[in-house]
Amino acid sequence: MAPEPPARLFASDNASGVHPAVFEALAAANEGHALAYGSDQWTTRATARFRELLGVDAEVVFAWGGTGANVVGLQCLLAPWQAVICAETAHISVDECGAPERFTGSKLLDLPTADGKLRPEQVLAQLHGQGDQHHVQARVVSITQSTEMGTLYGADEIAALAAVCHAHDLLLHVDGARISNAVAALDTDLRSLVVDTGVDVLTFGGTKDGLMYGEAVLFLKPELGVHARFVRKQAAQLPSKMRYVSAQFEALLTDDLWLRNARHANAMARLLADAVADIEGVSVLHPPEVNAVFARLPRAAIEPLADWSFFWVWDAEEDLVRWMCSFDTTEADVERFAAGVAAVVAEHR
Amino acid sequence: MAPEPPARLFASDNASGVHPAVFEALAAANEGHALAYGSDQWTTRATARFRELLGVDAEVVFAWGGTGANVVGLQCLLAPWQAVICAETAHISVDECGAPERFTGSKLLDLPTADGKLRPEQVLAQLHGQGDQHHVQARVVSITQSTEMGTLYGADEIAALAAVCHAHDLLLHVDGARISNAVAALDTDLRSLVVDTGVDVLTFGGTKDGLMYGEAVLFLKPELGVHARFVRKQAAQLPSKMRYVSAQFEALLTDDLWLRNARHANAMARLLADAVADIEGVSVLHPPEVNAVFARLPRAAIEPLADWSFFWVWDAEEDLVRWMCSFDTTEADVERFAAGVAAVVAEHR
Amino acid sequence: MAPEPPARLFASDNASGVHPAVFEALAAANEGHALAYGSDQWTTRATARFRELLGVDAEVVFAWGGTGANVVGLQCLLAPWQAVICAETAHISVDECGAPERFTGSKLLDLPTADGKLRPEQVLAQLHGQGDQHHVQARVVSITQSTEMGTLYGADEIAALAAVCHAHDLLLHVDGARISNAVAALDTDLRSLVVDTGVDVLTFGGTKDGLMYGEAVLFLKPELGVHARFVRKQAAQLPSKMRYVSAQFEALLTDDLWLRNARHANAMARLLADAVADIEGVSVLHPPEVNAVFARLPRAAIEPLADWSFFWVWDAEEDLVRWMCSFDTTEADVERFAAGVAAVVAEHR
Amino acid sequence: MAPEPPARLFASDNASGVHPAVFEALAAANEGHALAYGSDQWTTRATARFRELLGVDAEVVFAWGGTGANVVGLQCLLAPWQAVICAETAHISVDECGAPERFTGSKLLDLPTADGKLRPEQVLAQLHGQGDQHHVQARVVSITQSTEMGTLYGADEIAALAAVCHAHDLLLHVDGARISNAVAALDTDLRSLVVDTGVDVLTFGGTKDGLMYGEAVLFLKPELGVHARFVRKQAAQLPSKMRYVSAQFEALLTDDLWLRNARHANAMARLLADAVADIEGVSVLHPPEVNAVFARLPRAAIEPLADWSFFWVWDAEEDLVRWMCSFDTTEADVERFAAGVAAVVAEHR
Repeated sequence: MAPEPPARLFASDNASGVHPAVFEALAAANEGHALAYGSDQWTTRATARFRELLGVDAEVVFAWGGTGANVVGLQCLLAPWQAVICAETAHISVDECGAPERFTGSKLLDLPTADGKLRPEQVLAQLHGQGDQHHVQARVVSITQSTEMGTLYGADEIAALAAVCHAHDLLLHVDGARISNAVAALDTDLRSLVVDTGVDVLTFGGTKDGLMYGEAVLFLKPELGVHARFVRKQAAQLPSKMRYVSAQFEALLTDDLWLRNARHANAMARLLADAVADIEGVSVLHPPEVNAVFARLPRAAIEPLADWSFFWVWDAEEDLVRWMCSFDTTEADVERFAAGVAAVVAEHR
Repeated sequence: MAPEPPARLFASDNASGVHPAVFEALAAANEGHALAYGSDQWTTRATARFRELLGVDAEVVFAWGGTGANVVGLQCLLAPWQAVICAETAHISVDECGAPERFTGSKLLDLPTADGKLRPEQVLAQLHGQGDQHHVQARVVSITQSTEMGTLYGADEIAALAAVCHAHDLLLHVDGARISNAVAALDTDLRSLVVDTGVDVLTFGGTKDGLMYGEAVLFLKPELGVHARFVRKQAAQLPSKMRYVSAQFEALLTDDLWLRNARHANAMARLLADAVADIEGVSVLHPPEVNAVFARLPRAAIEPLADWSFFWVWDAEEDLVRWMCSFDTTEADVERFAAGVAAVVAEHR
Repeated sequence: MAPEPPARLFASDNASGVHPAVFEALAAANEGHALAYGSDQWTTRATARFRELLGVDAEVVFAWGGTGANVVGLQCLLAPWQAVICAETAHISVDECGAPERFTGSKLLDLPTADGKLRPEQVLAQLHGQGDQHHVQARVVSITQSTEMGTLYGADEIAALAAVCHAHDLLLHVDGARISNAVAALDTDLRSLVVDTGVDVLTFGGTKDGLMYGEAVLFLKPELGVHARFVRKQAAQLPSKMRYVSAQFEALLTDDLWLRNARHANAMARLLADAVADIEGVSVLHPPEVNAVFARLPRAAIEPLADWSFFWVWDAEEDLVRWMCSFDTTEADVERFAAGVAAVVAEHR
Repeated sequence: MAPEPPARLFASDNASGVHPAVFEALAAANEGHALAYGSDQWTTRATARFRELLGVDAEVVFAWGGTGANVVGLQCLLAPWQAVICAETAHISVDECGAPERFTGSKLLDLPTADGKLRPEQVLAQLHGQGDQHHVQARVVSITQSTEMGTLYGADEIAALAAVCHAHDLLLHVDGARISNAVAALDTDLRSLVVDTGVDVLTFGGTKDGLMYGEAVLFLKPELGVHARFVRKQAAQLPSKMRYVSAQFEALLTDDLWLRNARHANAMARLLADAVADIEGVSVLHPPEVNAVFARLPRAAIEPLADWSFFWVWDAEEDLVRWMCSFDTTEADVERFAAGVAAVVAEHR
């Protein structure tokens, strides 16, 4: 018999709620009137925080959600006859219902990878059609950091991709829905990871790191974002009561909350991987680099286990499941979940 | 000398904050984990509330903001070679940076009106090109209720438009960013105003009526919304932590808060119109039907008055300004604002 | 009783066939093989002819048809959040089934005019929203020369529009589906009319001036067309056996055939206007400036007359019809048509 | 030393000219006036010919070129959140500069194949995301017949794909830019190959089989094409002087000219394959099924050979080239080309 399920899910880091400090910031912002669309003091301050963190005068544009932030960022970089090179596991390619192609008009050239990470030589191999009017023209390389597979690009790997891009008149876009987890895991800082390496545009995710909603598009080369406000509005990504987005980001960027949340989530994933490592029938795919644990289970155990405490099957044919930890996952949650895995797997092998 | 400006602005109903009851609902929803994207109990309950209110099993789809909700609703009704007939003052035509055309591919046929209201005969006059492959094919009539001019369609007027639409294979879409103000002002109920009159799809606005963010697209003929979830995701309008949208709507639809907020805002607009009626040099365009006051001012007074307490100039050539009241506008705000108008206008006539 | 109808129609200049010299050029080009997509000697020569005629190294791009040429030209000038200012009678606005909006994503701001001609002050009046993220940003002014109403812009009028455009960071696009008729009527040359006046991009129509098919997009500021080949291919406007388009243009630009055809068509329109001037019940709207005659007829006569020899009703409510002359319209055609008008109108007044 | 190059190229079947019988039909159509846009007798007759050939009352829509015909056909089948499954070598995916994605808004799911041919099990493997709002929804399977690799689907293979499609609410689209070569090679008839097998929409190519320009979109289930005229116009694919497209198709469908042309081109490819088979250093990839010969050459020989008589390199890394035969390729051309291959390869091995 499986024990009581954990109080929190391992389904996704967006199943979590809002961090208390962020919620407090929302409450504090709920005073009186403020002009809409970003003409408010919270937006001014949150923008300044981002610029400090980056050490450059980035163009900072807030958007509703992750898909919207990717759409806005990419649209600013692309003409419709140009293309985006990405991994075939990229969120922009498989999880956004075609929003990037639909909105930008551009084709995604999605390439197979073993670990969700693009390599410079893959980018180079896509360039044979440049200049030929029959082919879409590669213009952007988009990587996800940390990746959808729970893996990480090192700063040197990002720099190598940026170098290839810039040598061939391409731009480097980073979908950073989990950039916080990456910075935390690599024990680095945002500037070193994305500015010094040459990234052009970064989506900085808030929702999966403790916000209620809100993502930021950071144009690290500000000239790339000069029309971003029009693009954002036309993409229906301009929040009207903007102060509530900005206030959350202000809180997230205060006292390293973004990093503390991410470090905790990453640590819980390592704990979980360890806790299930010795369960017979369970094999963890690779030691978690960030806040995701990928595990292979006995096929018969998957459904009953998910019925007990929901999570997503990553690859049904491979019996592969994904467990995500959040800023609010507790050690007790991990222990209880691991106990459940052990119990259900024992019963269904 | 102008007095102290009011504590709250008359700039727009989206300069207001979040109603305390709505904020409380957000706090209450911030407990533990919930599956994302609408698989949560708040969404189930808020959906049920809308269906009760409407008396039909509408397809209910929540979206981030007003432009997004319009885009999602219209996209579900249109093929790209079809067109939308609307007033030339319509928000979808002038205030959404081309989002509807961009996303749907469809043309907006925007028609001049005296008061922001379309008439059936204007619709009929647009149908001469139906069936001709050289012309876009009118498919949707979109009206705003209450209108951008602060006017109202009576239920009979909506029914007449719906009848013309349905007689000619068109659909009637209502941009209800301020539908609450309309229902309140007409002293009717939602079902009578939009279901019984034959409306096909309604955007039900939350943001301007006391929410932090969130709008609902209500497919009153549910078969029209059967693909709405794919459309919403591709439009980047699917909130991940959906419970926070739904919880707000649940609160708004409880104990008629949506109507109470709207009634109050409408009443404050009447109060303001009365308060400035006798100020020499100020003429109120027409008695406010909802929460907007349109007034003509001496040209020289406009800028100093806006510097004192900000509002938008509606038509610079006509010296016309717009003052909006909100759910949280107080009588003291109105009095102080009217006093400021009197003082500044006296100084700058 | 109406006489025998004329051998050729007055329905449209695209009801005409192919000029014999153009057809001969097609036959001459039909020898052996030539590389597709423009890598052929005919394309090289036709391009050179256009550059000679213009006196500038224009980027010259051939396309299939008029709508396609407009789409390609406009797309090169526009980001989707930008807009095109045009007359509400413009072909791009009413006769292309929304192709420009669909393909560019941009909004057309179509303005009422008495005679199909935009004025500089109308352009200026559209600029109040520039810089505001809620509004599409005007970027292109598109005029049709000669207009859909059969009227003409003088070189000074084009220059005035270009000056206003360039003073406000806009570009001037000319839909020249009937540019030949305009150059002929104004007794000028192409360079004086479009280069010296400051036009940025011109569609040069071939189909209505004696070609089988084929239009040219002329980027008079070649830097505007630097990506035109990709845009054209993505717009499905790249003819594969290009030599047959280019050979036609080469013939059209030889010995002023383009002007001779247009002069003839214009002359036939004047002849027709004179021939019907004294028929009781018929009033010619204005002396034809190019190859179109707009006439008001007794309502009862319109259908029987069109049954006798087809033409299009321009405005049913105004009893206004349009008669178009072509390069191959003969004086005998005109006489016979005028006789038919007289006979049918006499019978149906 | 290489001999004199052949009179005709082996570069592509669109390097060929216009078949004399087709050219004669153009000349015959060049008499007097005819209403534009398809309201002419040639279009009526060509449409009837297609329906006879197919044995069904297909909706028949003519378009300018192959990319345009694909765009029109696909657009009629797709909502933008739906997707097309195709081979990664498909013309729609790699050779149309993104036109299908740009115009339909839909994503192409392009799958690797050994021979350019999709298999039913590949289609089935793409259906796991159906119903999930985060994923584009597969709606169309598009195959090319004959394929870009010069291979063929047998009627049974097409029927098997159609069966899988229809069992899962998908539609089967065939890009038949070279459908004539396929019907000729399979020694079948059009009805057996595309109607009896269950194809939904077919692009019937004319340009590569002896036309100057023009392709047909055949909606074999006519209800799928009910809006095709609007789609075509909005896609800028409506020829104005339509009679010249239709007259060509009428000639092509007379006395089996389409098949005779294709049979000849196919035969010339076999002849060429045989002629180069014994040249040392040259290996023909597989016996040509239609009019394409794929051959592997010594790397050093490729450029000098193409300089002598141009052709396209198919895969530079694989030293693979493609030689295409046309309706007008002669045996003498083949002999001379083979002699040149022998001479240049001998010199550059």
